This record gives sequence, structure tokens and C-alpha cells, in this order.
Amino acid sequence: MNVTVNGRRRHCRTVSFDAPGNRVLLIEQRLLPHEFRIVGTRDYRATAAAIRDMVVRGAGAIGATAAYGLAQGARAFRGKDPSKFRNHVETVFQRLASARPTAVDPLNALREVRARMDAGASVPAQQQLALDAAERFAAENIGHCEAIGRHGAKLIRNGMNVLTHCNAGWLAFVDVGSATAPMYAAQAQGRRFHVYCDETRPRSQGATLTAWELAQQGISHQIIADNAAGLLFARDQIDLVIVGSDRTLGRTGEVANKIGTYTKAVLARRAGVPFYVAIPLSTIDWRLKRGRDIPIEERDESEVLGAWGRTRSGRREFVRVANPSSRAFNPGFDVTPPELITGILTPAGIFKPGELWARRRLLGGPA
Amino acid sequence: MNVTVNGRRRHCRTVSFDAPGNRVLLIEQRLLPHEFRIVGTRDYRATAAAIRDMVVRGAGAIGATAAYGLAQGARAFRGKDPSKFRNHVETVFQRLASARPTAVDPLNALREVRARMDAGASVPAQQQLALDAAERFAAENIGHCEAIGRHGAKLIRNGMNVLTHCNAGWLAFVDVGSATAPMYAAQAQGRRFHVYCDETRPRSQGATLTAWELAQQGISHQIIADNAAGLLFARDQIDLVIVGSDRTLGRTGEVANKIGTYTKAVLARRAGVPFYVAIPLSTIDWRLKRGRDIPIEERDESEVLGAWGRTRSGRREFVRVANPSSRAFNPGFDVTPPELITGILTPAGIFKPGELWARRRLLGGPA
Repeated sequence: MNVTVNGRRRHCRTVSFDAPGNRVLLIEQRLLPHEFRIVGTRDYRATAAAIRDMVVRGAGAIGATAAYGLAQGARAFRGKDPSKFRNHVETVFQRLASARPTAVDPLNALREVRARMDAGASVPAQQQLALDAAERFAAENIGHCEAIGRHGAKLIRNGMNVLTHCNAGWLAFVDVGSATAPMYAAQAQGRRFHVYCDETRPRSQGATLTAWELAQQGISHQIIADNAAGLLFARDQIDLVIVGSDRTLGRTGEVANKIGTYTKAVLARRAGVPFYVAIPLSTIDWRLKRGRDIPIEERDESEVLGAWGRTRSGRREFVRVANPSSRAFNPGFDVTPPELITGILTPAGIFKPGELWARRRLLGGPA
Repeated sequence: MNVTVNGRRRHCRTVSFDAPGNRVLLIEQRLLPHEFRIVGTRDYRATAAAIRDMVVRGAGAIGATAAYGLAQGARAFRGKDPSKFRNHVETVFQRLASARPTAVDPLNALREVRARMDAGASVPAQQQLALDAAERFAAENIGHCEAIGRHGAKLIRNGMNVLTHCNAGWLAFVDVGSATAPMYAAQAQGRRFHVYCDETRPRSQGATLTAWELAQQGISHQIIADNAAGLLFARDQIDLVIVGSDRTLGRTGEVANKIGTYTKAVLARRAGVPFYVAIPLSTIDWRLKRGRDIPIEERDESEVLGAWGRTRSGRREFVRVANPSSRAFNPGFDVTPPELITGILTPAGIFKPGELWARRRLLGGPA
């Protein structure tokens, strides 16, 4: 998307690859919204750490980062022994796959890149195929998000109030975003609407990233505490909910997404407000049979016990908010059951969650 | 309750009155949980400001503070003209009543003190009656909370997980608390249980005040992001919800409480978990006929856009978390309908929300 940096408007992707330097280039998202900086990871371990430590976050963005990371790791191999290379690639794969266990995009991306590498006869050929596959994954991710925007734009009518949770914007993908794609498309079609951004504690991605994105595109929005949506629903002040997903089960239509998503789905159902989940195809997990088998990442307690922000003097600082002797419980995700979801917004169109399996051919699933 | 301050255990009330100095004494709650300090307000304007700026907060605590503030204002009057005194008292009343518009406790407290003053024949007699009435209001508040504890303790069984929202603990009352009273009583009866404290953004009273209270009493607890309760409900890891209220309508059983309460009631209902609201009698509004007529205070945007806490170097500081160019919407309360409430826990026993009006004699309501 276009961003204004130091007064200049420029186009930028969330994730890209510097082939000569063998570096993955990432927007350092932990500095946003206060500072815009692009960083390069020097090796695959640093790329895995960037995923784990949330320099880059969001389903599609960490998928593409993992894909590039596998290419980066493969390309760094010095030697010609195919068996040693295979072991090395497996090490790189495991390191990248374990960085964020709930998300399925990195797993799908890594599997795709590795599968395409198999066509290469030599180590150099496989190294080149890895990079081609990663670039292809990234380009496909952008294409998917654009298609989500085309299908989803019609859901947003003039004057609507739209709620979104966390950040499923272009910062969460390679570009364009999933939950935001219909907003950007509706805006391009001249429609006016208002977006409520859930703050999304504990990491506040709604207040920092989604609000930054919408401000950059000039879309009317307000940040609300995660507690406030209930009042807005009860007052009929929300007309539509669109969120993203970190893993959607193709067999059941269950949706794992940022902690708090399930709560918004329950509230929307009680208020009779449509609840959509926007996903590129790489977010669909065709293997898992039950939502309760999705691993729910437990993150560090400190995220709940305080907050990162800018002090009045401009320093980036963590403040401890909570009682010093108290502990926290910090699950990163929850699972929303299909009966609370109006539709899954995919690059191939909008489907009921229960329809995904029947439409698996169209959606890139198994035969 | 007993608190440990500088290594010494001492008894302390949230609100009390220094009659010789004509000062209202308050725990400066904005410094908690990092610092424990008692402050005195020099006049009724400062007392109103302490309510408005949340030096003191919580239904019963601001009720007692308003009562003491009216006595303080009345006692500061110099002169003997009853008509000038009446005008002065009216000014004091209005200043204190308008400090927090959603809560009904201050209104009820102020009306009670003023009504009792009417029995005095002279200005000095009315001044003395004002102080007596304020002391009586505070003592009654403590008695109510103790009675809530006696009735509510049986709801908490061994091994239970209890969820609470915001702070309806002793810091929100003169002592003991409402939602916490059953916890303290169950603990005194030797039962063991675990409490999940909703962080309660934007002001984080759960993470700061409730967690501090429970830690002071040695009750097992964890702080969770407001987003996390949905997952716990879905996993059957919450057995009971107890919250407080800022205003409960005696005619309908609707409950105004801290923003986010309604959301927890909706989640509890879906999970089949009992949801109780604990209130002293002064929290019941017998006049209003409809929950939608309860004024919902909108607070400053900055509360949502950042957080107060301690920096690593120990300074109390506000950090801006949100995107600098974005705005927020910050309603302070929501209204939970009676059909989502299992019971109202009062000093006179536990009632269905729809029973309050029929039991109004018992509950201090109109004839």
C-alpha cells in the first residue's frame, strides 16, 4: 500500500526479499505507529526470531516471511552434498515452523516451498527453486487479498459502522490485507463508512497497526477498548464485523484468531449483526479435524501486566500497569465455532463455514 | 481491611472523615498498586474533584465520599442565615452530584444527608446532623458489604474458578467490597478457589486494584486481558461470575456497571455459567424506569489511547500506545439486561433481578 513516510508518499510491501544480500526485508512493526522502519534479517535464525518476537506478525505476513526464510536458509548452504543439504533444509524448516505454533500460514508456506524444491536436481537448482517458490507464495498472497477485496466490497454500504478486531490489514499480509481489503475496495468505489478498531489487548494491534493503516488511507475510524463493543452492539451502532484468521479449519469451518474474536462473534450473534472472517487460501488448514486440537499459544505474562508506548518525552518504553506481585494468564488465540460465522470471505468468493470442505477443490484443498 | 504497608499490617478504610480538620480522607487510588498513600481534601470542591478525577472510585466509596463532602461543605459555612446556608448546601450538593453522572450512590447519599439535615433547627445543628448522616451512610455501607459476604459465601465452593470485572472490592466501598465480599467470606470459612481478574481497560482497575486487594488477602488469582475470558468460558474454566454495579434499576433489574460487564454476561449465558451482581442497597435506583435512560458517562479519549504505569526506572508515567493521529470513543459503562443475570446479591439476600421491585420494602425502596 502507499504510505506517507517523512512527508513523502511511497509504495511499500510488508515483506520482501533482497536476493543479492540474501536478506528478508520487513517493516519493523513493533515500532509502529510511532516510527516506520524497514529491517533486514541476516540469516534464517534471525528470520525465525523476527516471527517469534513479532517484528512481523499476521497470518499472511508470517507465511511469506517463513517462505522467504526457508529460501534464505537454503541459499546460505555452502556445499554440494544433497543429503547434508536436505538435513540443513529440515533444520531451517523446523526452526521457522515452531516460531508461532497457532498460525497455519507458515506451515503451509514452508510445505509449499519444500515441495517445489524437490523438483531440483542439484543443490543450486533447489536453492533457486526455493526463492522462486517464496516469491510465488508472496505474489499469490497479494492476489488473494485483492480478490477478497473485490468479493467483500459489496458488504460495506454507505454510512455503515464496521467493527474489526486486531490487525488483519496489509501489515498482516504481504500487502492489501484480508479484513481491510473490503474496506480499501469500498473506499476506492467511493463509499463512506466508519470503522471501530478494537484496541486488542494485550498487544494493542488494533490501536497501533489497524488505526495507523486506516489513518494512512484516510478512512474514518475510532479506537475503542475491547470492553466497549458490547455497548455499541446493544445500541445498534455496529452494522458489520469483519475479522481475519490465523487458522481456519477446512473440515469444520472453525476459526482460530486473535484472543477476543470469539467474544465479538457471540456479541454479534446476540445483536443479529453479520460476522465475516476474511482469509487468503493459505490460512485454511485442511488436515486438522477438530478446533480443540488447534494449539493455542500462551504468550509471556508481561504483555498483560503492562504496555509498550511512547512517553511524553518521546521514548519508547514499557510501563508496568498491574499489581507488582500478581501474575497473568495470556492465551494468544481463541476459536470461533462455525454457527457464529455469517460467512468466510475468500479469494474465491464468500462461503458459509460449513461449505468449505465441499468447495475444497475451488479453495486449493485436497482432492 | 488489613493491608501491609511498609512491612506493617494495619487496618484501613477506603474513605473516612477527619472532623477536627474538616477533611475527607481517601486512599489515593491512582497511585495503587505501586504506592499506598492517604490524602485529605481541603474543601468540598477538592472532594468533588477527587471523585471526578478518580482519586476515589467505585459505587459505595464515591457515595460515602459525596456524603462526607456534603458534611464538609456544610460545616465550612460561616454565618447563621438559614436561607444563605440552604443556598450554599444546594451548591455543594450539585457540585458533588455532577462529578460522576452514571453512578447513583452519590445521589442517594447526598439526598439522605440533606434529608437528615432538615431535622436541625439552626445552622450549627444542621451541620452536626450532616456529619452524623455521612458517618451513618459510611457505617451502613460497611454493614451492607458484610451482609453481602454472608449471603454470597455459599456461592463459592472449593476448587471453583471465579471471574470478576473491574474493581468492586473494598477499595470501591468504604470497606469489605461487594463482589469481593463473598470471596473474603469464603476464604474466612477455609475454602480455596481461584479468581480471574479482567484487566478492565481502559483504566485497568482489575489489574491494579482488584489484583492488589486479592494479593493483600492472599487469594489465588491471575490477571487476564479483557479479551481472554471468552476462551476460558469456552473451555469450561469459569464456574461463577461476580461483578458489582454502579446503578441497578429497582423497577427493571437492569444493571449499569463498568464497560465490558454486559459482554461478560452474554458470554456467561452462552456457557451456562451463573452471573451474579453484588450491590449494597444504596446502589439501587428506585426512580428510573428504563435502563436506556441511565446516563452513560463518556470519558476522556486519552484513557483508551494509552496507559499509566511504572517505568523500569520506577517513575509513574503515561505512555501513548495508539496511532498518534487516531481518536478514540470511551464510554465508561454499559447496561446488562435482567435476563442475563442469575441473581442480585444484596445485604438482604439473593434475588432475581425481576424480584427487586416486589421486594422494595425489604430493600429500602419506596412504599
